[in-house]
Amino acid sequence: MDPKCIFCVIVSGAADASVVHEDEHLIAFCDLNPINRGHLLIAPKRHATNLAELPETTGALMFPLAQRLAARIRRSPIPADGINLMLADGAAAGQSVFHVHLHVIPRMIKDGFGVHGGGRAATRSDLDQVARLLITKP
Amino acid sequence: MDPKCIFCVIVSGAADASVVHEDEHLIAFCDLNPINRGHLLIAPKRHATNLAELPETTGALMFPLAQRLAARIRRSPIPADGINLMLADGAAAGQSVFHVHLHVIPRMIKDGFGVHGGGRAATRSDLDQVARLLITKP
Repeated sequence: MDPKCIFCVIVSGAADASVVHEDEHLIAFCDLNPINRGHLLIAPKRHATNLAELPETTGALMFPLAQRLAARIRRSPIPADGINLMLADGAAAGQSVFHVHLHVIPRMIKDGFGVHGGGRAATRSDLDQVARLLITKP
Repeated sequence: MDPKCIFCVIVSGAADASVVHEDEHLIAFCDLNPINRGHLLIAPKRHATNLAELPETTGALMFPLAQRLAARIRRSPIPADGINLMLADGAAAGQSVFHVHLHVIPRMIKDGFGVHGGGRAATRSDLDQVARLLITKP
């Protein structure tokens, strides 16, 4: 635990949070500045600054929990026509709390939230060049 | 497999894709309209329209693969000061291909990509009310 990290302080119970889920490895609680009502954050209990520090075994728990919380939101009285999952890894990606966390965001049609600076069509030749740089073995 | 689903057709090998990873359960390939160079999509091989249809056991594989691909991008010559993971579940959330997929997006400072319609501070009382609606048992 990092005592200067607000999410670690939440995990310790010393800071207020509206917690919706807690197990041995993960905690999920309401974002203080929700995009929409029901906006949740899933974080590992053990401090990990970013994706690189997060054990893959913990990462493997985060996505199924996001699935369960998304289903839970959709079944709840909270409006949600859709759900976004978002994670920012590094300041350049918009990370502002440096304890890795996955956003689960209820979405409604025309709710005013969105992304800008969208993609542009690439050529197959450039995509193949990118793939050669990134290819992994199973 | 759904023969009308472009991602299923990619999995079958009948449509071009710049593939960076393939294993028994997952495929990862370059987005045709990258936000930035190196923008990848991770998808299950077996058709699942959305998070609700995706087996949690497959979801549990997607996040660690995103971690590995994020690390791979950061080690590669492709510029990436940060990484965003994003998933749109439902049209209201921006889903346009109805075969569930997780975006892995390299980010640079001032790359022009971002979100708008950001969050607004909520009261603890409202957050606690939300949490009561969504609380799960471990």
